Amino acid sequence: MGLQGSPSEEVWPIEGVIELVFPDEETARVVYESVLYEHKTVPYRRSRIDFLLDGRKIVIRFLAKDNSALRGTLNSYLRWIKVAMDSLEL
Amino acid sequence: MGLQGSPSEEVWPIEGVIELVFPDEETARVVYESVLYEHKTVPYRRSRIDFLLDGRKIVIRFLAKDNSALRGTLNSYLRWIKVAMDSLEL
Repeated sequence: MGLQGSPSEEVWPIEGVIELVFPDEETARVVYESVLYEHKTVPYRRSRIDFLLDGRKIVIRFLAKDNSALRGTLNSYLRWIKVAMDSLEL
Repeated sequence: MGLQGSPSEEVWPIEGVIELVFPDEETARVVYESVLYEHKTVPYRRSRIDFLLDGRKIVIRFLAKDNSALRGTLNSYLRWIKVAMDSLEL
């Protein structure tokens, strides 16, 4: 895919943020901590993720080299969050 | 999924934005217009999308009722953008 920049520089032409708002801080914290382990153990090459807890919000900030990398990454995070919520019966 | 709010109110507990930066305004515009048709013809129930062109950036702003709705929606937009870029040989 031909997004911006020359091949020699590090280019992250896609950026964004997703915020998930939970009913209360405790719920957000429990889901966040469930996903944090996955976040810390996954290697990234074509996307970079900040995975943050901010009160009752989980915030996913990302940079990606291309569209396909972003789709893969976001799908993983959103799936892990769903699994955490399902297992906590939220 | 038990995100915030009571069943009686309209709740969109997930929000976010993705920005894709293209090498120039013309490229961004051509890709944007290719995807705009899809954007205008898709019905939404569980997510709301603003699909915008801002100079050499395509901006996707979204609200979603739940995680699964968001995944489906983002996958569609990112796939349409990839198809447009591939067909334009970008």
